[in-house]
Amino acid sequence: MTALADQHCVPRRGEAHRLSAPEVHRLLAELPGWALRADGLAIVRTLRFEDFLAALAYVNALADMAEAQDHHPDLELGYGRCSVHYNTHDVGGLSLNDFICAAKAERLYAAQHAH
Amino acid sequence: MTALADQHCVPRRGEAHRLSAPEVHRLLAELPGWALRADGLAIVRTLRFEDFLAALAYVNALADMAEAQDHHPDLELGYGRCSVHYNTHDVGGLSLNDFICAAKAERLYAAQHAH
Repeated sequence: MTALADQHCVPRRGEAHRLSAPEVHRLLAELPGWALRADGLAIVRTLRFEDFLAALAYVNALADMAEAQDHHPDLELGYGRCSVHYNTHDVGGLSLNDFICAAKAERLYAAQHAH
Repeated sequence: MTALADQHCVPRRGEAHRLSAPEVHRLLAELPGWALRADGLAIVRTLRFEDFLAALAYVNALADMAEAQDHHPDLELGYGRCSVHYNTHDVGGLSLNDFICAAKAERLYAAQHAH
């Protein structure tokens, strides 16, 4: 299977695209650092940065990716930190798009911290 | 007194700079749309936008202001919305800096929506 981060989001609507709990846990295992939100309806990861502007630079890079994928996160941005939440409103929970974007978000974070 | 939005933040640290409840309520009256968070330790406003990028453009403008004032908000950014939270960690609650920045944030929002 193509690595999650190399896949592209496609429209996923309706219950048929809602992932089951075993599917969610299998995909989460591919994303160290990501966790299921307490209500089970989103996946979340909190990232750390040097300061406000470094976190904002990441948010801007993430936004470019979100537009390209047409799948948008909910973000909490503070001084030196950003929490990224993915869920798929159109399935009422989690779809494969959330895991694809989480993997891409992870790759962006790694790229920003590699230099 | 100079309008809140025309003032500039200065370092405010320690309990002496923590605003009392009557001061908070008097200042909140100058900021329609802003509310005291349930715990009384921050002021909050949720703003609406056309889409994700419009909300992000606002966040970037807000970040420029935050850097200039050296006072940073906590933000929740989603598709077409941004919640702005101000509090002053160094006083353990609210200082005048929070209201100055909230007034500036309001002016930025009005400017972005005037055209």
